Amino acid sequence: MDIATVAGLLVGFAFMVIALFLAGSHGGGGVSIGQFIDPPAILMVVGGGLTVVLTSVPLKFFFKLPKVVMKIFFNKPEHVSEMIEQLVSLAEMARKDGLLAMENKVRDLKNPFMVMGIQMAVDGTPAEVIGDIMRTEIEAVGGRHKECKKMLDVMGRCGPAFGMIATLLGLILMLGNLDDPDAIGPSMAMALVGTLYGAVMANMVCIPMAEKLAFLSHEELLVKEIILRGVLGIQAGDNPRVIEQKLNTYLPPKQRKGAHEEAA
Amino acid sequence: MDIATVAGLLVGFAFMVIALFLAGSHGGGGVSIGQFIDPPAILMVVGGGLTVVLTSVPLKFFFKLPKVVMKIFFNKPEHVSEMIEQLVSLAEMARKDGLLAMENKVRDLKNPFMVMGIQMAVDGTPAEVIGDIMRTEIEAVGGRHKECKKMLDVMGRCGPAFGMIATLLGLILMLGNLDDPDAIGPSMAMALVGTLYGAVMANMVCIPMAEKLAFLSHEELLVKEIILRGVLGIQAGDNPRVIEQKLNTYLPPKQRKGAHEEAA
Amino acid sequence: MDIATVAGLLVGFAFMVIALFLAGSHGGGGVSIGQFIDPPAILMVVGGGLTVVLTSVPLKFFFKLPKVVMKIFFNKPEHVSEMIEQLVSLAEMARKDGLLAMENKVRDLKNPFMVMGIQMAVDGTPAEVIGDIMRTEIEAVGGRHKECKKMLDVMGRCGPAFGMIATLLGLILMLGNLDDPDAIGPSMAMALVGTLYGAVMANMVCIPMAEKLAFLSHEELLVKEIILRGVLGIQAGDNPRVIEQKLNTYLPPKQRKGAHEEAA
Amino acid sequence: MDIATVAGLLVGFAFMVIALFLAGSHGGGGVSIGQFIDPPAILMVVGGGLTVVLTSVPLKFFFKLPKVVMKIFFNKPEHVSEMIEQLVSLAEMARKDGLLAMENKVRDLKNPFMVMGIQMAVDGTPAEVIGDIMRTEIEAVGGRHKECKKMLDVMGRCGPAFGMIATLLGLILMLGNLDDPDAIGPSMAMALVGTLYGAVMANMVCIPMAEKLAFLSHEELLVKEIILRGVLGIQAGDNPRVIEQKLNTYLPPKQRKGAHEEAA
Amino acid sequence: MDIATVAGLLVGFAFMVIALFLAGSHGGGGVSIGQFIDPPAILMVVGGGLTVVLTSVPLKFFFKLPKVVMKIFFNKPEHVSEMIEQLVSLAEMARKDGLLAMENKVRDLKNPFMVMGIQMAVDGTPAEVIGDIMRTEIEAVGGRHKECKKMLDVMGRCGPAFGMIATLLGLILMLGNLDDPDAIGPSMAMALVGTLYGAVMANMVCIPMAEKLAFLSHEELLVKEIILRGVLGIQAGDNPRVIEQKLNTYLPPKQRKGAHEEAA
Repeated sequence: MDIATVAGLLVGFAFMVIALFLAGSHGGGGVSIGQFIDPPAILMVVGGGLTVVLTSVPLKFFFKLPKVVMKIFFNKPEHVSEMIEQLVSLAEMARKDGLLAMENKVRDLKNPFMVMGIQMAVDGTPAEVIGDIMRTEIEAVGGRHKECKKMLDVMGRCGPAFGMIATLLGLILMLGNLDDPDAIGPSMAMALVGTLYGAVMANMVCIPMAEKLAFLSHEELLVKEIILRGVLGIQAGDNPRVIEQKLNTYLPPKQRKGAHEEAA
Repeated sequence: MDIATVAGLLVGFAFMVIALFLAGSHGGGGVSIGQFIDPPAILMVVGGGLTVVLTSVPLKFFFKLPKVVMKIFFNKPEHVSEMIEQLVSLAEMARKDGLLAMENKVRDLKNPFMVMGIQMAVDGTPAEVIGDIMRTEIEAVGGRHKECKKMLDVMGRCGPAFGMIATLLGLILMLGNLDDPDAIGPSMAMALVGTLYGAVMANMVCIPMAEKLAFLSHEELLVKEIILRGVLGIQAGDNPRVIEQKLNTYLPPKQRKGAHEEAA
Repeated sequence: MDIATVAGLLVGFAFMVIALFLAGSHGGGGVSIGQFIDPPAILMVVGGGLTVVLTSVPLKFFFKLPKVVMKIFFNKPEHVSEMIEQLVSLAEMARKDGLLAMENKVRDLKNPFMVMGIQMAVDGTPAEVIGDIMRTEIEAVGGRHKECKKMLDVMGRCGPAFGMIATLLGLILMLGNLDDPDAIGPSMAMALVGTLYGAVMANMVCIPMAEKLAFLSHEELLVKEIILRGVLGIQAGDNPRVIEQKLNTYLPPKQRKGAHEEAA
Repeated sequence: MDIATVAGLLVGFAFMVIALFLAGSHGGGGVSIGQFIDPPAILMVVGGGLTVVLTSVPLKFFFKLPKVVMKIFFNKPEHVSEMIEQLVSLAEMARKDGLLAMENKVRDLKNPFMVMGIQMAVDGTPAEVIGDIMRTEIEAVGGRHKECKKMLDVMGRCGPAFGMIATLLGLILMLGNLDDPDAIGPSMAMALVGTLYGAVMANMVCIPMAEKLAFLSHEELLVKEIILRGVLGIQAGDNPRVIEQKLNTYLPPKQRKGAHEEAA
Repeated sequence: MDIATVAGLLVGFAFMVIALFLAGSHGGGGVSIGQFIDPPAILMVVGGGLTVVLTSVPLKFFFKLPKVVMKIFFNKPEHVSEMIEQLVSLAEMARKDGLLAMENKVRDLKNPFMVMGIQMAVDGTPAEVIGDIMRTEIEAVGGRHKECKKMLDVMGRCGPAFGMIATLLGLILMLGNLDDPDAIGPSMAMALVGTLYGAVMANMVCIPMAEKLAFLSHEELLVKEIILRGVLGIQAGDNPRVIEQKLNTYLPPKQRKGAHEEAA
């Protein structure tokens, strides 16, 4: 589990509360948290944002939203350099004992995309069919990721608008009942809470989570690309050293395991 | 019928009304719905938005707008996995008894794009011509979808501007007649209703419906892509198991029917 | 002439005037149109917008602006299905009597791009040269269209900014002379008229006209693409039925003339 | 020299001054230009904009900024149709007397890119090397143009933000010293001058100049593309008439010199 | 070290302070810097911006942020023309004495990407493998650069939103405690300081630094592209003069060393 997202959200809200109390103590009047809690604005901003997602996507996608959020919180990053090692050792085996020799190893592999690729190679599927199927899978996965990200994007993009709608509702109500001048300040404050919610939901929650999802998707597709190239290299009987060098190119220099240690 | 869009719109407006009454009761003054109904602003925002669409597109496109909206509400999603089964069973038939054997089955197919493709294969049209025609059709359909989506985009994008125009008209009128200070509050409230309408039309109606249209288009084009690849595979006499595996790649893993059950 | 653009503009302005009088009568004070006419703001918004276009493009492009606007108002849509019929009948002629037989027909063709293509085919120009020249022409025309659209885009994009500049000029003048409190309302109203002009010019005039231009360009390029493919098919001596089927693919299903009626 | 940019800027500022005096005389109070001159805001908006460019680009690019601005004002458009004539006459010469015959003509050519191309053809450089070098040059020039344009883009994009910063500085100062109510109006006016400067710098100066630069770049690259295709045609010994027809395709129909007059 | 970024930041802040004192002295009231220092707003804008980055990216990327900032300040530009000279002299050596002759020179090369390429050529790696590996490396480096830039982009994009959040917190607190009218001015001023911070952080710090990073990335990738093409030319045994001419094409004309001087 990559704690960055959880930590980011928690620290962000902590900063907001601290800033609030600092500002409140500075002004001398103190802060009553109640000033910042406005149920209709919560309904309008969070509920409104969710209904926009519901309107925007097919029902089955909408129900994926909690799973998408969970994935952002609890993803396990792939260990890319281990995966490259696995592919290189499979390549060595295939070169020594033939493609069929990998059959026993398939069960030990964890990544289902690698299992699929190696299994096809073992089954004697021609290279262009393997490439075609794996490439289509990568594109289809990328497409599904984009549609998941879109839900958070939609919610992030319309957050400020729903904040404004909540504020406008409050302002219009207030302006229609200007009898009590003492109520103007608090009513105005309450109306502005809607704008605050919209800005927070969009900028502290939805947009960064959408960005994180894009990062995770990018990483997953990179891993799949590495596997695709590894499997095609194995199938073609390429030199394991060349495969290793090619696949290592995808890693930042520090994470690469040198060919020398491997060969040793 | 996918009820997500209708549900999203209804729940969204329900949330807004609930938020309004919650806020009104909170302030103590209650809510008169009349405060939120402003015919000139409706004319300016909804009418203005429609005239912008009218200005933006050829007349024949403008008249498609109600049909586009209906499609968003009442689309039936394709059953992609059934369609793949159909293509696989056609492939088996074609492999056993030749391409002509599919002729009797063509009538039972529901998807017109599949009918067109299979019919061309039965007629002995060369593969490159089939591919060319089906590919052009996919691109042309995609292009028409984009132009339909553009109408909703245009209306969504100019919604806030028309809300602002309605508000400006109200403000200018008010500022020109500042005789009665008691009228300032309600006049200002009424002016702000225009901004509210613009924000609601854009963010709760037009933009999510445009997003939904993009989803539906994406799905329809994916189905057409699957059919194209299926027909080309059938025409080339590919192994039905390979065709199945290729086409299943377009589906998310859960929706795939395993080759094992099929073969059984 | 496609009346959509003219109708859109007229109805849009009519809606605005109606909304204004509705709002004015509602407030009880009535509307004096004079409140909404502000020569310096017109100069700043319309004149400013035009000078930005002048700054943005070479002089010869700037002088094309009226022609571009006229084209948006008075374009005649091509009759694509008739054009396909022409190409198919030329293909039949060329197949029966050779490419030279089309020479007499060239004079009857109205579309200059089709004339150019057929003439090259008659002259015996090799297929790759025809394809190259026609493709370059399509791209060059598309590029010129984009530059024309850019002028309207520029004016649309800076409309709100010039409205704000007009309003700022008015506000700064007003704030510098706050002697007469009674003048504040009308001065403020007058200042806001600038913002109104900017929003109207951008959202009701320039942006939808730029969108319309993009539609017209898209349609013209599609027609040219159809002609290109038709001419290449004719030059290659393709079966006229296949050419017809290919070209019809570009049309929405309803506009297609079935091969059956044609063949009859 | 294309006077459009200079004219656009001058007329734009003239319109602003006229609008100002019209508005001032309308209000009755007259205009004192001093109200609109605020040295700290000039420093913040123009100086701030320039420092953002300085932060954004390597030092050597920053010093190119005056040259870029000069180029926008004093560019000389290429005479494309004359250039095509030159290429066609070179093609005739090369076809009659061989590639070496062009050597004497190279000195008379003005465009350095054409000189480079023809010289390589005379030197017997193989076609793929010529194409490779000229293509790389076109891409490298396009890349450098984009980086120059980016400087104006950056300044245009942050103009309104610096205007707002200048206004905020003024507002915060004013709000901290509310002792003298009579000073509020003029202080507020002065603060708004910052916003005015930002809007003017961005919308009347930087953005249109960046657009103009994009136009000039587009035109220069088009000319280079024409030269590239001309040189490759000459090197391949193509028919001069075909070369002429191909190159003319890049021109709008009116600027083309018909093959007939040329051949005569 | 390219001092442009540091200079830009320092001069930008200096301009802001000067503008502030000019404006303060103009108003007569003087400036107390304390008016512009608001710890809760700093926490909200800078801290909030950092937590958004933390939420948006995997933890390991977040910790790269200081290194990225350092790179922007202390990058050393590559001397491209020297690098081209090195490649040309390696090409001469390889042509005269064979690829193996370069082995001794590899140690003297500083650029690790050039070392990698030349070493592969020396090792007899086939051209397509060299091209494949170096191309993948270029793309992988470009991808990592983009992800680094994204962190600054995210912070720049949400800067104004966090400024607004800080201002809203202040405004809501103020509006809830309107007891003391004398406190309204200073409280409002303090609230606006949040907006100021957000605008400054985004427009004077994050966005220009992100732009600078894009420039540096572009330059580094260009250098790698030149090396790739040089190595492939060397491996193919191309004429050193042709290699030089090709590589020089990437440079602006002034930085090119003429073939004549080199050959002399």
